Amino acid sequence: MHDIKAILFDTFGTVVDWRGSLIGDLGAWGAARGLVVDWSGLVDAWRGAYIPSMQRVRRGELPWTNLDELQSRSLAELGPRFGLPASLSAEDRDYIVRGWHRVNPWPDAVPGLARLKRHFIIAPLSNGNVALLVNMAKHAGLPWDMVFATELFRHYKPDPETYLGAVSLLGLAPHEVMMAAAHNFDLQAARALGLRTAFFPRPTEYGPHQTIDFAADSDWDVVAEDIEDLATQLAV
Amino acid sequence: MHDIKAILFDTFGTVVDWRGSLIGDLGAWGAARGLVVDWSGLVDAWRGAYIPSMQRVRRGELPWTNLDELQSRSLAELGPRFGLPASLSAEDRDYIVRGWHRVNPWPDAVPGLARLKRHFIIAPLSNGNVALLVNMAKHAGLPWDMVFATELFRHYKPDPETYLGAVSLLGLAPHEVMMAAAHNFDLQAARALGLRTAFFPRPTEYGPHQTIDFAADSDWDVVAEDIEDLATQLAV
Repeated sequence: MHDIKAILFDTFGTVVDWRGSLIGDLGAWGAARGLVVDWSGLVDAWRGAYIPSMQRVRRGELPWTNLDELQSRSLAELGPRFGLPASLSAEDRDYIVRGWHRVNPWPDAVPGLARLKRHFIIAPLSNGNVALLVNMAKHAGLPWDMVFATELFRHYKPDPETYLGAVSLLGLAPHEVMMAAAHNFDLQAARALGLRTAFFPRPTEYGPHQTIDFAADSDWDVVAEDIEDLATQLAV
Repeated sequence: MHDIKAILFDTFGTVVDWRGSLIGDLGAWGAARGLVVDWSGLVDAWRGAYIPSMQRVRRGELPWTNLDELQSRSLAELGPRFGLPASLSAEDRDYIVRGWHRVNPWPDAVPGLARLKRHFIIAPLSNGNVALLVNMAKHAGLPWDMVFATELFRHYKPDPETYLGAVSLLGLAPHEVMMAAAHNFDLQAARALGLRTAFFPRPTEYGPHQTIDFAADSDWDVVAEDIEDLATQLAV
């Protein structure tokens, strides 16, 4: 563990509370406009469309398409079912899609990252695109040293090109880089490539719909309570 | 000017004093080892090899090669002429090459960037590679929101792919992005693509060997004294 030079963080769910943030942000915005939209239902269905839409890119059924664009297409498809008016302006649709840029951190994220930043290179390794992740960091105060959007590699996680791409750009060996995530599948992919792994659960990420990732399902290098606890366990 | 959302900074010379830093860092390191090397001569010749080595990549005579690797090859070529012993270990050579990761900021850089960061996305757009720029930011305390190494685009400045690549990843239009540099040629390339431009001189960048860039050679959008003055002129 003394070899670790950099820690890469999954972002959605791991660092930020996308569900609570989006329902709060869009709910308030919609209310101010008198829109009657089932925002919780829309946000959950929207996130539900996230993996399948990336899979289409990963399988080569779609050319490279970044996350903002995938989310925009999913919103167009799902919106009507939850009460989003077809008459909404392009500007309003853009505001909704960019809700993913305005999500808030879990309470331990900013203080935990600040502690880790003193000793390690810290960066997201996220399927969000660069603009999304940079705007999110400004909004949420995330003190990244670098922003690894998988867009840089034109691959989505868990494709190996994403983990190895970040490791290579940092000029490090896989065992010098730790992947931190609240999702076991992400760590499985990282470990298979030689990266170190850290898990902490986010049991309310999906609200009442959470079915997995309540606990570590393997002997990850670190199993922590949250990012502050990860900093403590790494003795920083 | 009210449209500006992001400011991209050239780095070597513009944000950091590479010459003073390298001569100081390597001079102290060499003295502790009893090496008799003409460090000023070596650093100046090394920097002299920088543009020609990138030009070979830009013209397609070399496949994509990042800056660390170009600097390593130039050092191997130039070292003997300035007294660098051929017997130097690989580890010592690596330490010297990584001197470019340990350069110090000009005095106005960190406070100026901190002011600009509150209102704009700030990032380097530099021919340094990702590892170099991330390590430099840690060393020098540069509070970047994102690190645009031209390595991400496999092109060196002033190729258009570098400026437009950063603009595109930020999800912005060229007129929403300002290029800031102490080098007129960099701003010429950026302006030709529609970016805004800011110049401030670094008249001691090349020490006694400086021959150009003592002043703005065009009507750049902002001509400032340094990064603090740029922040003042942008009213932040």
